[in-house]
Amino acid sequence: MRAAVFSDGKFSVEDVPSPSPGPGQILVRPLVCGICGSDLHTRHHAHHLADLLQRAGFKGFMSPDKPVVLGHEFCCEVLDYGPGCKRTLPKGQRVVALPFMAAPEGLVLLGYSNTYNGGFAEEMILQEDVAFPVPDHVPTDVAALAEPLSVAVHAVAQANAGPDAAYVVYGCGPVGLSVIARLRFLGLGPVLAIDPDPARRKFAETMGADAVMAPSADAVGRWWEGQGAPIGVSDASAARAAGLAGKRPVIFECVGKPGILKAIAYEAPAGASIIVVGVCMNPDTIEPGYMIQKELSMRFVFAYTAPEFVDATKMLEKRPELFEPLITGHGTLDGITAAFDALERGGSQAKLLISPT
Amino acid sequence: MRAAVFSDGKFSVEDVPSPSPGPGQILVRPLVCGICGSDLHTRHHAHHLADLLQRAGFKGFMSPDKPVVLGHEFCCEVLDYGPGCKRTLPKGQRVVALPFMAAPEGLVLLGYSNTYNGGFAEEMILQEDVAFPVPDHVPTDVAALAEPLSVAVHAVAQANAGPDAAYVVYGCGPVGLSVIARLRFLGLGPVLAIDPDPARRKFAETMGADAVMAPSADAVGRWWEGQGAPIGVSDASAARAAGLAGKRPVIFECVGKPGILKAIAYEAPAGASIIVVGVCMNPDTIEPGYMIQKELSMRFVFAYTAPEFVDATKMLEKRPELFEPLITGHGTLDGITAAFDALERGGSQAKLLISPT
Repeated sequence: MRAAVFSDGKFSVEDVPSPSPGPGQILVRPLVCGICGSDLHTRHHAHHLADLLQRAGFKGFMSPDKPVVLGHEFCCEVLDYGPGCKRTLPKGQRVVALPFMAAPEGLVLLGYSNTYNGGFAEEMILQEDVAFPVPDHVPTDVAALAEPLSVAVHAVAQANAGPDAAYVVYGCGPVGLSVIARLRFLGLGPVLAIDPDPARRKFAETMGADAVMAPSADAVGRWWEGQGAPIGVSDASAARAAGLAGKRPVIFECVGKPGILKAIAYEAPAGASIIVVGVCMNPDTIEPGYMIQKELSMRFVFAYTAPEFVDATKMLEKRPELFEPLITGHGTLDGITAAFDALERGGSQAKLLISPT
Repeated sequence: MRAAVFSDGKFSVEDVPSPSPGPGQILVRPLVCGICGSDLHTRHHAHHLADLLQRAGFKGFMSPDKPVVLGHEFCCEVLDYGPGCKRTLPKGQRVVALPFMAAPEGLVLLGYSNTYNGGFAEEMILQEDVAFPVPDHVPTDVAALAEPLSVAVHAVAQANAGPDAAYVVYGCGPVGLSVIARLRFLGLGPVLAIDPDPARRKFAETMGADAVMAPSADAVGRWWEGQGAPIGVSDASAARAAGLAGKRPVIFECVGKPGILKAIAYEAPAGASIIVVGVCMNPDTIEPGYMIQKELSMRFVFAYTAPEFVDATKMLEKRPELFEPLITGHGTLDGITAAFDALERGGSQAKLLISPT
């Protein structure tokens, strides 16, 4: 089969042996597979990422010195079964799955394993009991968003979210947009979304943000106190979002760049909870004495549980049309380098999907 | 009256006019007044502290360019009343009070005001309705601990503390020791206390720590997992504290020096809540990508509410003998510079009290 093999910082499409499903595993064909922010990190900082996970006690991550086939945001089609499978998912059934596998040699992160290939390939294997069927009415592209949406489901679950709070989302990439969608899906708001890119602010409105604005020094603090007008916002949406004032402030950090935590601390109202979803790979500087005066809190959240993944699939099943605009591009295995390049340029891209076949 | 006036980075004992209590205010004589970590900061970094509070939107802090009489951890004796006082506290009554005053010109922080002097003086004024009588059985020195103990009462209240958790306290100065005492007072534990100084570790045991240890790279993480023996701990206490394993990890940061947050993140078990009580005045570096992998949280806590201050006085009333060992020295107004010097040398000092008369 063909696969986009990542090695020494570069992709090359190669013919590799087809994987063979073991006990409880199924063989599938990735129909589409999204490019994640973690994949972008891996392209340039694979050794740093591996070191960080190793130090954090996380097992099962790849060796960055060996070739790997990335891709963990996939929607696949069932091809075949390993020994002892229940076979409740018929051949040809579209499925999504947790990108984790309890292999005999230990936990495997699909898409970050030197042994099991990820979704940027014509075939891969999944663990049968964490694969879920995709209903017919859900487009394949939308189904592939289950994994990134799970991150948002988990982040919101960890945020002590409730009707007494108001929400600010910094960064309207796929994760920030998914957080906005999840909050609104749960009936929570108002939600203010912040991003420098006008196209991404438009996405944020589509996902249900009550108001959007460009980043601006201390604009959030002023707005929370009802003292300032948000930038780049229509009067109507500003009025709706004015409900922020007086509510318990919950802030989602979905940017993941150095300096953002310090900036958010300065802009945050006193007592704000900052949920850190963006993965900043660099050391970052904060000002503890300042954060103490404002009694801020920072909760770092990561990944999701199996029930949260299922919750994400349920959301996509209920409102598939909501998520379709987030698919801003498609590519092939041969175009994978160009697709990574496009995402790194940022701007108006949200989710780019690779179709391996 | 005589007062230790702090100006241009130096103390000088001067004769200054006696303060005159306004409406709802009482005139008192400070019997003892403790030196706080914030006072030590102020000695060398008054401008930084003022800038930080101003940026955090905190009103009522002194101008660092003008003279000030510090001291906000006081036990006083009632001397006289301003107009309109209820006079429920008789003359001669010992009192403690919140070091805040709703003055006509706005909120005043006693001990950090250029207008109202703090407790390093022969007289001061308090707001009558936030002053509380000290029962006869509570020693004056112990009563003066109400303010620092309130900080610990607040920190524990913000920590989501409960019987399902186990506790680690980094730093056994007055705040860390008060946190240990508060946890044990509430029946919470086990508590592991960490400090490089053997005398402070001894204080921690006195306050009820189940085990104590010197700082050591990743010792906490190892211990939490039951894999390592804590350092400098008797077998008996180690056995008692072994209850940490498998419990929800709650960590109190009571050190307040650059680097401690990063060190705690490395040592913390996954999922730990870090309650930041120590006031680090310098910018500090953290590694967000690492903290995300371990899903750590940091909650920055500051000061206390009036009910929390009252809770602290009740604790001192119930167990005054517990707190007596924390008073490790006394000084006079004339010896205030020497007392600050002694605290800055660190080591086995806990709380130093100044007796202004």
